[in-house]
Amino acid sequence: MAEIEFWFEFGSNYSYLSVMRIEEVAAERGVKVRWQPFMLGPIFQSLGWNNSPFVLQKEKGEYVWKDMARQCRKYGIPWKMPTQFPRLGVLPLRVVVTAAAKPWVGDFARQVMLLNFAHDRDINSKEAIGEILEKLGEPAADIITEAQSEPVKLRLREQTETARARKVFGAPTFFAHGEMFWGNDRLEEALDYAADQTVA
Amino acid sequence: MAEIEFWFEFGSNYSYLSVMRIEEVAAERGVKVRWQPFMLGPIFQSLGWNNSPFVLQKEKGEYVWKDMARQCRKYGIPWKMPTQFPRLGVLPLRVVVTAAAKPWVGDFARQVMLLNFAHDRDINSKEAIGEILEKLGEPAADIITEAQSEPVKLRLREQTETARARKVFGAPTFFAHGEMFWGNDRLEEALDYAADQTVA
Repeated sequence: MAEIEFWFEFGSNYSYLSVMRIEEVAAERGVKVRWQPFMLGPIFQSLGWNNSPFVLQKEKGEYVWKDMARQCRKYGIPWKMPTQFPRLGVLPLRVVVTAAAKPWVGDFARQVMLLNFAHDRDINSKEAIGEILEKLGEPAADIITEAQSEPVKLRLREQTETARARKVFGAPTFFAHGEMFWGNDRLEEALDYAADQTVA
Repeated sequence: MAEIEFWFEFGSNYSYLSVMRIEEVAAERGVKVRWQPFMLGPIFQSLGWNNSPFVLQKEKGEYVWKDMARQCRKYGIPWKMPTQFPRLGVLPLRVVVTAAAKPWVGDFARQVMLLNFAHDRDINSKEAIGEILEKLGEPAADIITEAQSEPVKLRLREQTETARARKVFGAPTFFAHGEMFWGNDRLEEALDYAADQTVA
């Protein structure tokens, strides 16, 4: 079955668009999604930035929020400008590390993203993440304990190192048959590439 | 009639895609194109960059050339990786300053872009630009003389100042009814916005 690797970060606004869309548009093409959480902060630091470029570059930052409002309208996705950006989302990223192959990972990721970009709420507290897991009918306390264990923390750091080694410089980033595609604007193209190459 | 402002630079590879496409996709929507040449170098300098971000950021730069090859294939536009990037294109930008309202401005811009991104040739010499103008049946020597006059040089600098004042941070950038749209990926969206707002 055709596969796409989906490298994303919960603090990233353009990742929000892809998290909300990817399972539906991938299913339309018969492509399986491999969820690949990573931390964008260390990647930006290695590029010489101590924050998101949307914060560091004032003009681009102002534009991005207008673009986000328009993109969300286009896709029918809710949007509320977050009062804190970028939000730290290391706890939910660690949950995805433990749950990347679980059937509820997509639902979980969408709920976390909605918290950040539709409800303007903190996404890094045990309370907020526990509430989402409970609503999904999962054992919240156990999952959060595992997510905070040293092996899982290490695996998220390794994910980030892998992203850097594969020359990821932003999020979302997709890999299909080794080809890199950057940005929510390339989601469909990446999926088409994944599907076509597999057929051929 | 609905209008779109098209801010572009001949050295910019994503401007190449839009220069090649804009007149056709704008005509489909009944939108008039206003050609707005400007210099990206001073804009980048004001953002603290002494070169294109595709040169300064190695990872993004490597990706961009793969993306360009794919985008050109998608749109059916020729592509040859330029051996010099970004190329200085101040002479043809000045020609567009003098010719922005002429019926041949689109043909001229496409020929200059093809020289840069399909034939990997210098775009800043009087010979190269003169040849294009001659093929278009225009008085090449007169146009080049005018393009190099002080008033035209000043007007190009003013265009660049206007771009900066309007918070342009990259190219191509489109304005439709005062709304900014950045990047070739937003060309259709900007045109739709221009057309819809005028109808409404």
